[in-house]
Amino acid sequence: MYGFNGKVLKVNLTNGDVEVRKLDEDIYRRYLGGRGLALYFLLREMKPRVDPLGPDNVLVFTTSVVTGVPLPGFGRFTVAAKSPLTDGFGEAEAGGYWGAELKFSGFDAIIVRGASDKPVYLWIHDGEADIRDARKLWGMTTKGAQDSIREELNDKLIRVAAIGQAGENLVRFACILNEARYASGRCGLGAVMGSKKLKAIAVRGHGRVTVKSMDEIRGLAKWFDENWRNNPSAVYLSGYGTAGIVTVLDADGILPTKNFRDGSFEHAEEISGERMKETILIGTEGCFACPVKCKRVVKLTNPYQVDPEYGGPEYETIAALGSLCGIGDLNTIAYGNQLCNAYGMDTISTGCVIAFAMECYEKGIITREDTGGLDLKFGNREALIQLIHMIAKRSGIGDVLAEGVLRASKRIGRGSENMALHVKGKEVPLHDPRGKASLALMYAISPSGADHMQAVHDPVYEQSVESMKCLGILKPIDRLSLDAEKVRAFTYLHILNSLYDCLDVCKFIFTPHVYGTFKITQLPTILNAITGWETSLFELMKVGERALNMARAFNVREGLDVKEDRLPHRFFEALNSGSRKGAKLDAIEFNEALKTYYKIMGWDEVTGAPEEAKLKELDLEWVIDIMSQHC
Amino acid sequence: MYGFNGKVLKVNLTNGDVEVRKLDEDIYRRYLGGRGLALYFLLREMKPRVDPLGPDNVLVFTTSVVTGVPLPGFGRFTVAAKSPLTDGFGEAEAGGYWGAELKFSGFDAIIVRGASDKPVYLWIHDGEADIRDARKLWGMTTKGAQDSIREELNDKLIRVAAIGQAGENLVRFACILNEARYASGRCGLGAVMGSKKLKAIAVRGHGRVTVKSMDEIRGLAKWFDENWRNNPSAVYLSGYGTAGIVTVLDADGILPTKNFRDGSFEHAEEISGERMKETILIGTEGCFACPVKCKRVVKLTNPYQVDPEYGGPEYETIAALGSLCGIGDLNTIAYGNQLCNAYGMDTISTGCVIAFAMECYEKGIITREDTGGLDLKFGNREALIQLIHMIAKRSGIGDVLAEGVLRASKRIGRGSENMALHVKGKEVPLHDPRGKASLALMYAISPSGADHMQAVHDPVYEQSVESMKCLGILKPIDRLSLDAEKVRAFTYLHILNSLYDCLDVCKFIFTPHVYGTFKITQLPTILNAITGWETSLFELMKVGERALNMARAFNVREGLDVKEDRLPHRFFEALNSGSRKGAKLDAIEFNEALKTYYKIMGWDEVTGAPEEAKLKELDLEWVIDIMSQHC
Repeated sequence: MYGFNGKVLKVNLTNGDVEVRKLDEDIYRRYLGGRGLALYFLLREMKPRVDPLGPDNVLVFTTSVVTGVPLPGFGRFTVAAKSPLTDGFGEAEAGGYWGAELKFSGFDAIIVRGASDKPVYLWIHDGEADIRDARKLWGMTTKGAQDSIREELNDKLIRVAAIGQAGENLVRFACILNEARYASGRCGLGAVMGSKKLKAIAVRGHGRVTVKSMDEIRGLAKWFDENWRNNPSAVYLSGYGTAGIVTVLDADGILPTKNFRDGSFEHAEEISGERMKETILIGTEGCFACPVKCKRVVKLTNPYQVDPEYGGPEYETIAALGSLCGIGDLNTIAYGNQLCNAYGMDTISTGCVIAFAMECYEKGIITREDTGGLDLKFGNREALIQLIHMIAKRSGIGDVLAEGVLRASKRIGRGSENMALHVKGKEVPLHDPRGKASLALMYAISPSGADHMQAVHDPVYEQSVESMKCLGILKPIDRLSLDAEKVRAFTYLHILNSLYDCLDVCKFIFTPHVYGTFKITQLPTILNAITGWETSLFELMKVGERALNMARAFNVREGLDVKEDRLPHRFFEALNSGSRKGAKLDAIEFNEALKTYYKIMGWDEVTGAPEEAKLKELDLEWVIDIMSQHC
Repeated sequence: MYGFNGKVLKVNLTNGDVEVRKLDEDIYRRYLGGRGLALYFLLREMKPRVDPLGPDNVLVFTTSVVTGVPLPGFGRFTVAAKSPLTDGFGEAEAGGYWGAELKFSGFDAIIVRGASDKPVYLWIHDGEADIRDARKLWGMTTKGAQDSIREELNDKLIRVAAIGQAGENLVRFACILNEARYASGRCGLGAVMGSKKLKAIAVRGHGRVTVKSMDEIRGLAKWFDENWRNNPSAVYLSGYGTAGIVTVLDADGILPTKNFRDGSFEHAEEISGERMKETILIGTEGCFACPVKCKRVVKLTNPYQVDPEYGGPEYETIAALGSLCGIGDLNTIAYGNQLCNAYGMDTISTGCVIAFAMECYEKGIITREDTGGLDLKFGNREALIQLIHMIAKRSGIGDVLAEGVLRASKRIGRGSENMALHVKGKEVPLHDPRGKASLALMYAISPSGADHMQAVHDPVYEQSVESMKCLGILKPIDRLSLDAEKVRAFTYLHILNSLYDCLDVCKFIFTPHVYGTFKITQLPTILNAITGWETSLFELMKVGERALNMARAFNVREGLDVKEDRLPHRFFEALNSGSRKGAKLDAIEFNEALKTYYKIMGWDEVTGAPEEAKLKELDLEWVIDIMSQHC
């Protein structure tokens, strides 16, 4: 039993029951952890069509067989539930230290069901678990709750995953923060915690993850350490964080600006990673066991107070609160980022919902009367900050926007639907498919709605392709192509990334176009050193494919079908500015690519459901049974 | 350019043109060689629906990127063409030394088209190739032709692949022999050579296969050498050859006896590997670079003359000429084996067609008048020997039987069809699906008709499963089961074996239940050391799957469809004797399993054709084009 504890904590918040369930090694080998294990639990433990914000929703926290092993990028974890944004499979992965600490505490996963009638938090420590009173934490920021718990339990090394007021107020895109700066960001899972009156999960363990060969693990860590330091791209990631791509995307004409109408932003330079380094950056930081330190630490005292403990803005946040809203000021973005982290609110959805409101305002669909006097012009810094507060507190128009762009646009009507950029109700992240066609497939097909982490690497460059050859991707493919070759490459990369999400590993640590990070072919080697198995990339890719099929089955059971695999109309409209001005997606080509994808995956192109033969192939006959009971 | 020469020899026997064609590395990476490369050529170079015995049939000889590398089992090669037995894809792999020698000569493959008007042979030597007169070789035995060529060219180390009289006389199951004892046995490819008046291909080269890391290759060879010697199963294979399983299968009730009516043979002991060792065995022999030496060397002077150079009988031959015909005498079998090798005639089909005739005779469908006085009783040794001569020479009833059981039974009629054990016209090999259900799928689905080498390992034993876990086969499966779990395992193993056939590696060298032979997970390691690629089992399995789909497409183009994926009725009838007396296949279960297999493979269950999406996934869009031109 290497790599896992074999123990899952099951908590029922309605009646306070806490039990420990054992899991066989074969389950770990079939699902590995993360997304796969989460879906294994969700499909089995959740009744279909439950209210995502009701007590019957099941909230799971999972790690994998590699989580907590001292290798870079191996400290992440998954949170999953039915999403209040998409009404389908909701998931979010986060870095930091919490995932590794859960493994050290003796558990691999937590299943939370029911709802408490008063605020509580969960305290998990060395094989034990208690449900504790959190009444005095309710209303606190994520950091406030974390600090209070550490003080109450008198241990500064306790790792806390907490919600803020956004989660408490059931903002549909509320998130969960650990260390107050590592976000399990998307799909509104903070609202699910809020609906269960679960303020936080605090973990502490003095165990460690037993591996088959610690010598090999040390060797791999050393290999990584020696290699990435000599690599310009990796050094760039360390130097500028994800913020480093602001100017790159701007020059490329796909920096999402003013609610995705423009592809270039006049103030791009001012919100760039380079500018951050020159101004507010006071340090960098890494997750568990990671030397790359791509995380930014920023500090600001004027015009806003920004506490370094809330972390600096990532690229997604900069573009969401910045260019997307026409805001060219890094200080405002850094402060907005802090507010989102304190309230526990996804910065991508927050920026997207504010940009939506700004476009509605510009077009007169929302008036100053609706906004309670706020002048919701693109570029209005103060309006952005105010709106963040209002959304988190559900005050005024913030109450409507807290529902996310899909529901807000339905309520507002009057053509606002065309400004609501989402897939399956989840707001679109800050990457424009009009300049990188694989994103069109990625957004449309992602089981949890628009998501930029589903297939992060594109076979565009010779050097990325070099490391993708082991997947049969032998040559670069035009970034704008959606032909069969692209769909094939996308399908394999989508499966690979699903595997990464089953492993809960950082996708920057397996970056094809960054020499010096782990290679895809090292996956079996790493898994073998940890687990003692003798696995292969074939077996591992099947795990990724299995999880994608389970997610699809989950969504079908919840009533989502192929009609939901759509894109916002905006991406079929021409970009207004930037080096790709005029670029737009072709609907016929896109639909053709989607169909090819379904067929390759073994999914019915009419219903979108995985074919029974595909489920049989993936050892998912139990999913066929579950589907037939409920469909 | 490691592992291959990048050169293919193209020969047109009609006009005598010989040209050298270069092949890019990507082709090798996509198809590897063997079956894959053969199909690449056949699909592109052959017009559909040609007469398999006419000049438009294309005959290809292929090796792979590993052929000729000094590792055990890496000296094999593929011969392929449209089969005169099945009218579909015909292929045969053989060991020996010829495959490695072709690589040393500077070529990776040979494509032969057209037909000569007088007998010729092909002489390939160090990058050169000549078509030479073979009039004086016509009518010779395989060994005679080989010896003559060596003498004529004055080089005893020339490797010769030759046909005998059976090929010259277009016996539909004529084969090709190298060293007069390594048979490219099945599908009647010797008849294709005969139809082109091509007596032999002689090769000699002084080059070698350049590899990326000879140190690693040496290490792998050493690893193999050290490991298999300590393993009881491998030692068993060395000690008794494939003949070692005669008594095992007899005890298990699935030794095919008297045309598959019985599962046990009263004289099993007398035709066993153990008995061979005690009597006629004078030595053992291995193929190129192989220490296992599973080949038997036998000698006999009385009552027959058996020349050691023709080799000893394999299990298939023993059962085909022995138990299947009710013949319990090893001497007769060894002599029959020699005759088949001298005439160049597949022993499996030969035994099967004789057993067919014997059953017809027993039932009065064939009479002594038809046989020209031969008393064709089961067990009549002399009749067996006479019939082998008659078939090879197409004399008397031999002329009918030389057509194979399908065509012979059509000609004979009167219910003889039920005694003709074949799939797609190819005679059934000597393994009974009534005791091992995966064989039912294997025979029915094999692209080249009934074949026992399509998925040689079954996940029946704990120790086989141990090495199959890397394919996601985590636990043993009942040998009689045809449920979804079995179909999944079979599908993966079928693909794996297709990969082996693309690599032209010996399947005994990758034997899951024999510790000490290469493991499946070593495949990428071996490929990388040879080619310098960084491949994975994922990429490699896709090559195997690609070849299966190409073979299927070839057959569809030739007019074969799902109706041809049938089994002889006999397997749905109860076994008459042995420990599995009464055992039979269930037709409903079998058909259900077939359907699941098609769906898993992405094949249309009505037409049996690979779906376009599957071909797109496998980078086979050119096959879609070819199919649409001709279907």
